Amino acid sequence: MGGETLARMTCPADVKGLSAKELALLAQDLRVEMIASTSLNGGHLASSLGAVELILAAYRVLDLPHDKLVFDVGHQAYAHKMLTGRLPGFARLRQLGGVSGFTRRGESPYDVHDSGHASDSIAIALGLAEGRDLRGSDERILTIIGDASIGGGLAMEALNTIGQRRKRRFVIILNDNEMSISHTTGAISSYLASIRTSQRYITTRDAVEDALSRTGLGAGLVRLGEMAKASTKQLLVPGMFFEELGFVYLGPIDGHNTAILEETLRSAFEVDGPVIIHAVTRKGKGYAPAERNPELFHGIGPFDPETGVPVKKPAAAPSYTSVFARTLEQEAESDSRIFAITAAMQGGTGLTGFAAKFPQRFLDVGIAEECAVTTAAGLAIDGEVPVVAIYSTFLQRAYDEIVTNVCLPNLHVVFAIDRAGIVGQDGSTHHGALDMAFLRSIPNMSVIAPSDEAELADALHTAIAMDGPVAVRYPRGAGMGVPVPATRSELPLESRVLREGTDVAFLAVGKMVDVAMKAAKILEADGLGASVRDMRWVKPLDVRGVRAACAARPRLVVTIEDGVIKGGFGSAVLEAMADEGLHAPVLRLGLPDEFVGHGDVASLLASIGLDPQGVADSVERRLGAEDARADDDHR
Amino acid sequence: MGGETLARMTCPADVKGLSAKELALLAQDLRVEMIASTSLNGGHLASSLGAVELILAAYRVLDLPHDKLVFDVGHQAYAHKMLTGRLPGFARLRQLGGVSGFTRRGESPYDVHDSGHASDSIAIALGLAEGRDLRGSDERILTIIGDASIGGGLAMEALNTIGQRRKRRFVIILNDNEMSISHTTGAISSYLASIRTSQRYITTRDAVEDALSRTGLGAGLVRLGEMAKASTKQLLVPGMFFEELGFVYLGPIDGHNTAILEETLRSAFEVDGPVIIHAVTRKGKGYAPAERNPELFHGIGPFDPETGVPVKKPAAAPSYTSVFARTLEQEAESDSRIFAITAAMQGGTGLTGFAAKFPQRFLDVGIAEECAVTTAAGLAIDGEVPVVAIYSTFLQRAYDEIVTNVCLPNLHVVFAIDRAGIVGQDGSTHHGALDMAFLRSIPNMSVIAPSDEAELADALHTAIAMDGPVAVRYPRGAGMGVPVPATRSELPLESRVLREGTDVAFLAVGKMVDVAMKAAKILEADGLGASVRDMRWVKPLDVRGVRAACAARPRLVVTIEDGVIKGGFGSAVLEAMADEGLHAPVLRLGLPDEFVGHGDVASLLASIGLDPQGVADSVERRLGAEDARADDDHR
Repeated sequence: MGGETLARMTCPADVKGLSAKELALLAQDLRVEMIASTSLNGGHLASSLGAVELILAAYRVLDLPHDKLVFDVGHQAYAHKMLTGRLPGFARLRQLGGVSGFTRRGESPYDVHDSGHASDSIAIALGLAEGRDLRGSDERILTIIGDASIGGGLAMEALNTIGQRRKRRFVIILNDNEMSISHTTGAISSYLASIRTSQRYITTRDAVEDALSRTGLGAGLVRLGEMAKASTKQLLVPGMFFEELGFVYLGPIDGHNTAILEETLRSAFEVDGPVIIHAVTRKGKGYAPAERNPELFHGIGPFDPETGVPVKKPAAAPSYTSVFARTLEQEAESDSRIFAITAAMQGGTGLTGFAAKFPQRFLDVGIAEECAVTTAAGLAIDGEVPVVAIYSTFLQRAYDEIVTNVCLPNLHVVFAIDRAGIVGQDGSTHHGALDMAFLRSIPNMSVIAPSDEAELADALHTAIAMDGPVAVRYPRGAGMGVPVPATRSELPLESRVLREGTDVAFLAVGKMVDVAMKAAKILEADGLGASVRDMRWVKPLDVRGVRAACAARPRLVVTIEDGVIKGGFGSAVLEAMADEGLHAPVLRLGLPDEFVGHGDVASLLASIGLDPQGVADSVERRLGAEDARADDDHR
Repeated sequence: MGGETLARMTCPADVKGLSAKELALLAQDLRVEMIASTSLNGGHLASSLGAVELILAAYRVLDLPHDKLVFDVGHQAYAHKMLTGRLPGFARLRQLGGVSGFTRRGESPYDVHDSGHASDSIAIALGLAEGRDLRGSDERILTIIGDASIGGGLAMEALNTIGQRRKRRFVIILNDNEMSISHTTGAISSYLASIRTSQRYITTRDAVEDALSRTGLGAGLVRLGEMAKASTKQLLVPGMFFEELGFVYLGPIDGHNTAILEETLRSAFEVDGPVIIHAVTRKGKGYAPAERNPELFHGIGPFDPETGVPVKKPAAAPSYTSVFARTLEQEAESDSRIFAITAAMQGGTGLTGFAAKFPQRFLDVGIAEECAVTTAAGLAIDGEVPVVAIYSTFLQRAYDEIVTNVCLPNLHVVFAIDRAGIVGQDGSTHHGALDMAFLRSIPNMSVIAPSDEAELADALHTAIAMDGPVAVRYPRGAGMGVPVPATRSELPLESRVLREGTDVAFLAVGKMVDVAMKAAKILEADGLGASVRDMRWVKPLDVRGVRAACAARPRLVVTIEDGVIKGGFGSAVLEAMADEGLHAPVLRLGLPDEFVGHGDVASLLASIGLDPQGVADSVERRLGAEDARADDDHR
């Protein structure tokens, strides 16, 4: 497996001994291997293709794992993973039991942190630097972060602190590929573009040294009093934004030129203060289809490696995302108050069409979920109806803003929460496990979890028509294949009974309604009658529905959700029962109180017992236990 | 009430007609009134004293409430509140039913948003601007934000978006008083200081116009290509950091000179793009004791207005904060791994002594909770034991970082959560209502809620000794007055029974243990026996303790907590009972599913039924309902 040069690499240090020619061959081998692996199982190909030379240069300069290499997001780290013993695992990249698509401490001593959420690397590196300096140790700390991630609030907070703490042997490579997933938005990005287009690249060792002397090696924060005395030449230094934050800025440099990267890195670690190296790379580098269409190849499914054409999947139902997007566009036609906001996920949340149709009513704030939610609050104050479309896992970034800026003033903001529940291959950092638990405990918040794409359309319509904060959560992937009516109806504040049965009463939300229906059939085959209720609303909960389910005196009430079991929908049912004085044995099924790994959705659900058979088994086991308990009581 | 000039003001527009002399008198009246009101009930005096002229200048330029004035944090807005019909309410500032210490939409049409958490104003203003431009309207939007708040991630995210959206009639006053609560940290702050100390202030209208011509009115983002051609004079413009983010920078100006503030504001609203006005103010301005000690007067209790000396309170028990701080210092003496982190709350979290004793093991990241938690993760990776001390309400800002950067990799980070539960006068934005609910649903997290200061010391010792993420939550204010042993013991993973009784079983956490004890005595007087169990651990829950409580077959199990009732500790008890097949009527008492307002802690607790009498009443009411239900069942 792997090309000849790649095959010879046994550890990161091996890269140091390579000639320029061998280095180029290694880069080529790595790219071939990435393309081959991702063509089978999909993955974040374009970013990883773009970061090959950055990683090779880092390996040549750093002594790993003594020195620390921290990847932001981590989906650009495939070359790193392949060179640290995980090449054999790449055939099962992102599959159950295979290599993760991000850095994971559990996988390798060369992975510093569990990456996946953007903008965290600089603060992680700051912590490492504080620890190092406290210990009086000397390791070099290198962070690789993209031009979109550096605009996230967490990254800016860390830059602000590091600039003042004047950390030495501390270097950030700003990997500027002009893209987040689609084109990066924001003033910082425009600023980087202005440097890219107006400055000559640093191309020689002399130029590095010249740049350092111009910025005043070790001078750090540019003092404006000194600027008055400075020569015109000094004032032409680009990167003033970073200089004013206390960093020495070096760049722009060609991020695919390993030799100049290596020189610049070596120099940067000599500076008596933190350094930002501005490296310009090409997303998808070295694979023509990915260079032509980096957004498609950002996170891609299986494809033909020859042509780059995605493998045709059998025609599935339209995705939840597309039904959300189409419905929102329809609603927006007749309701001019609707304003859509996304945080660097225009494509992923399905809003590309909306943005084209209603450019004045669309805002992409970049990787800035806090800003997305708070800006939505401002729009709601102004009288618009903002619809904030964010993946469940990334909405965690805006928890306080949801509480303080939206729910406290009880503003009408609609949260369209995509990728709720198990998302599959992206794994532990990306599952939407917590949204029901964290949203339903916030006063004034309503939460709808539609059970199919038709209910999603009605739920979105309902959320737009109601008042106050309301979240609609829906899963990744294809809908159930039910027809979505052309006109939408308001969802009543009540559950609906989908199936009758006397032994077991399923109270289900979201995509778990379907699982409950299938589990009920399995139970029926085993002689157990099960009712199934699509609860629809996580909050406010349909207490009458819960009462009705208990009134039928089932042997077991089963709550089932694709959210975390502690504090989620099932707990809401328990609360309602306790408040109403309803008594019945309750089995809560959901995501376990542990982090779930990566793999395809079906395998993951089965692995945690949330497939129909697993659910039926759990129910039968619990019924057995209840019988034993009853026997005990009678004894 | 109020001086003569203040008494004549009936609405903000009245300020426009005042002569310079009258304006000065009004400023004086406002300050006198602020000092008088806060001397009675306490409040955020120093910040509000410093912002008087900023607010008066804004009133003279803006047409309110058509134009929008957005206050960051809002505790600097007392002058604004006094001039918008709330002067009479100031005698009961921050008291139950009195005026809030922050801007509140419910109080006045002149309050744009519910402020309280730093760094949100710019994103709120962005939302207002997007709505305005969508409607084709023309209102001017002005934000006042402090030099500490602007370094928060949310503010930086919003600057990044606004700079690119090129919003016009959009002005930010950067109120630079060199302080957050204590001195501001961070590179941005150092940068502002360098401008303050090296630049001449803009002092005339000509200077404003000169500054605008130098920055190139409307040019926005400084293009570095153009810089090469620019004159030296142009290159000397300060505020390059903001210019490079797409803003026109004007300043520094004297933030207590109403005339120049007014001129600058008028000019700024003419600029075809967003503007930042850098105004330098003095925290505590006009009141000598507050100017001398702005940190003391940031948030102060009652004091003698003549001398500025705080009113001596009767000797109470040491505060939880001080016991935490002393214990942490003791632990740090013997454990060199301990590293303390705060987010602009060194004094409030009690860490001033720690910072002095262990300067190498202390970090204040400024208003940057996300960075605080993620940096802690880096330190934990490095092998230190970071203790992150943050108020419960502000920890909400770091929810995703707790989940993704700490709990997912199961790092040993200790969260010292101060101000948990009802905090009192600061009110709805500041209560620590949600921490138990949002923390216990995260896998790998442990949560301890000590019932008194001795248990707090043991809890902190335990948290430091264990592994993985662990939170210790404790309330604002004085402890219970119990002795804190000189040596600490590890808390066992179990509850402790404080009182026996057969009718009612209280399961209590934190300061509610004391309330349960007192309620039990009231119930006893009414002939009802009540046991009380200090549960100590919210997670992992002492399931054996719950089982034991249920095994005694009480007529009612009562859970009691000073956290939100949906998803909190009580729900954890319900989950354990459901999982274990335990059946008993359960009454959950805690903070209601609504936002609680401001007032003293005792009044607020009583208003939501969490005082001993209220608890006893709720228990007796529920017992009555249970009896009625039992009768129904027997019929």
